[in-house]
Amino acid sequence: MEHLLESQQLDKEILFDLFKKAEEYRKSPREKLLSELKGKILATLFYEPSTRTRFSFESAMLKLGGEVISTENAKEFSSAVKGESIEDTIRIISCYADCIVMRHYEDGAAKRAAQVSKVPVINGGDGKGQHPTQALLDVYTIYKELGRLDNLKIAIVGDLSSGRTVRSLCYLLSKFSGIEIIFVSPSNLRMKDDIKNYLAEKGIKFREEEELNKILGEVDIVYMTRIQKERISQEDYEKAKGKFVINSENFNLIKKSSRLMHPLPHVEEIDLPVEIEQQDARVAYFRQAENGLYIRMALLKFLLE
Amino acid sequence: MEHLLESQQLDKEILFDLFKKAEEYRKSPREKLLSELKGKILATLFYEPSTRTRFSFESAMLKLGGEVISTENAKEFSSAVKGESIEDTIRIISCYADCIVMRHYEDGAAKRAAQVSKVPVINGGDGKGQHPTQALLDVYTIYKELGRLDNLKIAIVGDLSSGRTVRSLCYLLSKFSGIEIIFVSPSNLRMKDDIKNYLAEKGIKFREEEELNKILGEVDIVYMTRIQKERISQEDYEKAKGKFVINSENFNLIKKSSRLMHPLPHVEEIDLPVEIEQQDARVAYFRQAENGLYIRMALLKFLLE
Amino acid sequence: MEHLLESQQLDKEILFDLFKKAEEYRKSPREKLLSELKGKILATLFYEPSTRTRFSFESAMLKLGGEVISTENAKEFSSAVKGESIEDTIRIISCYADCIVMRHYEDGAAKRAAQVSKVPVINGGDGKGQHPTQALLDVYTIYKELGRLDNLKIAIVGDLSSGRTVRSLCYLLSKFSGIEIIFVSPSNLRMKDDIKNYLAEKGIKFREEEELNKILGEVDIVYMTRIQKERISQEDYEKAKGKFVINSENFNLIKKSSRLMHPLPHVEEIDLPVEIEQQDARVAYFRQAENGLYIRMALLKFLLE
Repeated sequence: MEHLLESQQLDKEILFDLFKKAEEYRKSPREKLLSELKGKILATLFYEPSTRTRFSFESAMLKLGGEVISTENAKEFSSAVKGESIEDTIRIISCYADCIVMRHYEDGAAKRAAQVSKVPVINGGDGKGQHPTQALLDVYTIYKELGRLDNLKIAIVGDLSSGRTVRSLCYLLSKFSGIEIIFVSPSNLRMKDDIKNYLAEKGIKFREEEELNKILGEVDIVYMTRIQKERISQEDYEKAKGKFVINSENFNLIKKSSRLMHPLPHVEEIDLPVEIEQQDARVAYFRQAENGLYIRMALLKFLLE
Repeated sequence: MEHLLESQQLDKEILFDLFKKAEEYRKSPREKLLSELKGKILATLFYEPSTRTRFSFESAMLKLGGEVISTENAKEFSSAVKGESIEDTIRIISCYADCIVMRHYEDGAAKRAAQVSKVPVINGGDGKGQHPTQALLDVYTIYKELGRLDNLKIAIVGDLSSGRTVRSLCYLLSKFSGIEIIFVSPSNLRMKDDIKNYLAEKGIKFREEEELNKILGEVDIVYMTRIQKERISQEDYEKAKGKFVINSENFNLIKKSSRLMHPLPHVEEIDLPVEIEQQDARVAYFRQAENGLYIRMALLKFLLE
Repeated sequence: MEHLLESQQLDKEILFDLFKKAEEYRKSPREKLLSELKGKILATLFYEPSTRTRFSFESAMLKLGGEVISTENAKEFSSAVKGESIEDTIRIISCYADCIVMRHYEDGAAKRAAQVSKVPVINGGDGKGQHPTQALLDVYTIYKELGRLDNLKIAIVGDLSSGRTVRSLCYLLSKFSGIEIIFVSPSNLRMKDDIKNYLAEKGIKFREEEELNKILGEVDIVYMTRIQKERISQEDYEKAKGKFVINSENFNLIKKSSRLMHPLPHVEEIDLPVEIEQQDARVAYFRQAENGLYIRMALLKFLLE
């Protein structure tokens, strides 16, 4: 694996190696890690807004002793504005850096970048395509929280038509056995057929539901997502907004041993009081975001060696 | 003191400790400082434009051997644009960094951030609220220039209704004795009552004036500020613009032993020839900005230990 | 040479010293370079979009063990938006950094910056003025590709009226002997008289042509440039667009021993299949961009010592 473009690339062996490395990094004294990637440079090339992905990759690189060159708004302030192709930009940046994390508004942008790059390219989200490092931290979180990735019942909830994180997650889950997925989405924002066909081929059990409360009690993981206003029509948004919400009323339908996850940012689809967010073990999404740091440290080390 | 949110938090003891540390850093060979905060990461999270504050904090962190993750335009290019709350953003960033400097367009934003952060939060300016590190460098500058912070007569001039730096400065000055403040502002942009009440409570002498030239000769410090066009109505701006200006005519009303200060950026309210700016000892605002670097180094060390 | 503002400042001796240093850095083990500029800070202050210039300077600084403070959009997110002058911004930034690379939309901005800066200023492009480090990497590339800088016939093609890179290049070429320049541009975007007069004074042979294919076979270097839509009128742009293009048809008019260069980004003026771009030795523009990294490392070392 030279680049990480799609979550399918990650096989079980790599996954468990990355989990192990992430745990090692989490427990290691800070000073000790500064020689891991000393002298290496990561370029973060973001054509779309980001908080967690860019900052956790940059922090990961710095914690391993590496350095970062960064653009938070490449759409307007790189040569893209003068009409340069992704390929040309990457040909050059890959002379200046040892690894590139790219987020782009077009599906397939990371693949195009990888075809011409001299250094590893990590897909930090490409349009409605994939977001493989989000899926990576998701399965890492499930493994840490529940102790297993096999024999898992998971509800994936929200805007499934444009959510690249849930697409990447489905590919990864299909590597494991005894998986059952329940897709819960507004009828206008259902999971696309390519993913459903893939799951069917791999023999993964799945079904679609439109009522959230009905299934909250039967799953191990409730994976909520945001309605992606910026990627769908106003009409689709109005129809979907506020339809699936976890609040203090239905939160307790979730089993004590189960976990509530979210790739974040969340808006109204999670509406829980701070005390629950801070104290109830079922709320896993802040730990999930923190896990992103350690698993991305592990990934950078893996790709840069 | 875990966070720095308001200048009131800084007591005399902390202030003089910080001044001492700042002087030590100023004189120290560069190489020697690189181990001070080695391996630590500062996040600069700016929702409003900045030059001095962001750059001086970043430079301070790097000079102490630390690292920086940065966003110059968090309003548009972080998850804020997708509707994420400040609290959620901070919960996550505080997993990735060891300290956060935040500038935000809402009053009270830094306090809200501090309530959920796992690491120290420094208020880099919150709306019309406070800007405590500006006040910190202001009193540091006064102390360096005049050798004292007690028995001081200071004119604070300009847009006092929306200037967060002058609000923070008043809180800090009230820690000292023999202070007398003259507020000089257009009638529509006067210092707000909360500050005036606070000063009265603390027994600090103050009065309001509308004529600048009348008081220039009687004060130790002339503290000019910009009319903050971006925070007031067009009407208020037109009324205030150009009303209080220091130029080559009235500059010499300032006593030879007194100092002219400004938090910068300045526009037309200071209109002095370059020779005076460069050579006359009374012009202290460039030294003041440079002091910001050293005092912020001291502050980072203090909060991160 | 304290600042680098115009390419004229670079004499032959400095040029060959920089070439030598660049080659040394290119071949040196990475770890070995990390002490070269350890503890030094570079500020990149960009008021206009950039990919190559900003990233290559930042990468250069980091590879030499230095650190970077950066703004990719100083026009909107520095105090410029509040009306601060370039001079004041630089006075302050030069207290926080050891070197400043500035790109600005106004001709002469770098010179104004240098007049007040306490540290070296490098002009990273000023309006329609100059872009001396581009010219520096251009002559470095010609020297590496052809083994000489004397006795050179070069066609400079495209929008010559607003291209700051070609202006800087002409100044540099005039340092050498046996130079012949053919300017190929639309009649509305010709090279300006100041450059033509300068070349005449220096005894450099040049002429103007309007037909590209006619001269492709007779030159050692074809230096293409983009029509700078953002700096000219819509009418001028429409007249010039697509007029001078290198594609698979006329590419082979270029001699096998000659080189095709471009400062990048390119748009439609180069329309070659990927195989030619990747494999034909005449295509030098990606190597040219990579050279930028090493020559900028050499320049930073030179100015910071």
